[in-house]
Amino acid sequence: MKTIQTINELQHFLQNNKNKSIGFVPTMGYLHEGHLTLLKKARLENDVVVMSIFVNPAQFGPNEDLDRYPRDIEKDTELATAEGVDVLFAPTAEEMYPFESGITIHAGTLSTKLCGESRPGHFDGVLKVITKLFHIVQPTRVYFGQKDAQQLAIIETFVQAYNFPVEIIRVPTVREIDGLAKSSRNVFLSDAERAEATHLYKALSSAMEVWEQTNSVEEAISKARLLIESNTSGKIDYFEALSYPDLQPISNHTEQILFATAVFFEKARLIDNIIVNVKEV
Amino acid sequence: MKTIQTINELQHFLQNNKNKSIGFVPTMGYLHEGHLTLLKKARLENDVVVMSIFVNPAQFGPNEDLDRYPRDIEKDTELATAEGVDVLFAPTAEEMYPFESGITIHAGTLSTKLCGESRPGHFDGVLKVITKLFHIVQPTRVYFGQKDAQQLAIIETFVQAYNFPVEIIRVPTVREIDGLAKSSRNVFLSDAERAEATHLYKALSSAMEVWEQTNSVEEAISKARLLIESNTSGKIDYFEALSYPDLQPISNHTEQILFATAVFFEKARLIDNIIVNVKEV
Repeated sequence: MKTIQTINELQHFLQNNKNKSIGFVPTMGYLHEGHLTLLKKARLENDVVVMSIFVNPAQFGPNEDLDRYPRDIEKDTELATAEGVDVLFAPTAEEMYPFESGITIHAGTLSTKLCGESRPGHFDGVLKVITKLFHIVQPTRVYFGQKDAQQLAIIETFVQAYNFPVEIIRVPTVREIDGLAKSSRNVFLSDAERAEATHLYKALSSAMEVWEQTNSVEEAISKARLLIESNTSGKIDYFEALSYPDLQPISNHTEQILFATAVFFEKARLIDNIIVNVKEV
Repeated sequence: MKTIQTINELQHFLQNNKNKSIGFVPTMGYLHEGHLTLLKKARLENDVVVMSIFVNPAQFGPNEDLDRYPRDIEKDTELATAEGVDVLFAPTAEEMYPFESGITIHAGTLSTKLCGESRPGHFDGVLKVITKLFHIVQPTRVYFGQKDAQQLAIIETFVQAYNFPVEIIRVPTVREIDGLAKSSRNVFLSDAERAEATHLYKALSSAMEVWEQTNSVEEAISKARLLIESNTSGKIDYFEALSYPDLQPISNHTEQILFATAVFFEKARLIDNIIVNVKEV
């Protein structure tokens, strides 16, 4: 595996690999099994696999965890090598943002719900870095985990609306045995919080069941919220049900329902979700 | 020459022309010699030449001339064929904008001066369509005339900041014998206005001369404004001097000065500019 830190060097490598299909896995590093699942799928489906590690300052707010976002480039390098990654692209912030153009991308109404409400500007920063990375890597296929469902919905919409010549591949969330969604931020949980955190997925599963039995989204959500509130020390940021991927209120036309939640623990804000197909009646 | 109206069909054509260099000339049609100069240069420098004709609604304001923007697809087809264009891509507005994603691109501070002041949102609309066209055509080189200097400056900045894998080629403004910059909007001038309109280029040339003699931008501009005001019935929208391509006020570090003007006539707003190299002292 080659580790490349500059855009020029990466483009030189890609120039020498023209006409090969390129699978791309953009990450912020500190890889867990969720990432490894993306890499395995990319490896199976493409000639060349490029993984990026870039903790993108543009998607962190001023009071967020940019500086203490966990990093372990050595272990990441080992893991990526083991998964057969061809190129690890790990640019500096100066390499990615050498000047401020004043030209910005706004995620709009898709970004004002769910995580967007407590993270203003977050998805604008995601679209900024994604645009740059897609142009730099020019991938055939890009792999994202379903765990960041809102991010995935926004990127899928962006790619479609702006005709990016890439295929976006959604990969199901990878979970611990007890159901907790894998996340780089799980390391920030205390032992007690780690045990409590399993109730996010339990609450999502319960919401799905209640909805399937009662067809009432309100009932599903209120029972799920109660489950989290009574079983964890966390503070619910949101627990919502929206249509997927357009993130609109549930209606008779909704084909997929996204149940999504975010919960603040002392040093970590965790997110998780389930997407349910609405059965024809 | 093939005329193609859908994105799918264009991408099918491009798929069959992989590994060829693609020269792209985006236009709003009603071709004049300025466009033909772009096409000739594209033809010389690339294997395949794609020209688009799309009168982009996103870059017209509500009170602007979208509906009466001149169109002549038959003559354009003849002219493009004669210049050796391989594909004329002429999509409908529905093909280009099938749904409203809510995701927007903002040209920012570069767009608040010159033409941007009287055309709010114009350059946002330009960046929207340019992003889509660049992704659809995936050109090697894209050709723009210097006449739209602010558009060129914004697109060059955008391409650099967001790493679009294309080369932007600036082509000097093509003029009538009497100096008037070629423009599709010149057809809207009355005979009297057409005669007066030569004073835009005269005023720009005078500004350049005054500046070279006196080194005073203020003096250059005020003399040029007076020339336009006393020789035309038009109303000056702006006559400005800015550094190029960053469109900042002139300073000791400025390497290129853009003198640019826009003048309202009865049925047409004309623009023109000159770019002057600052000599080392």
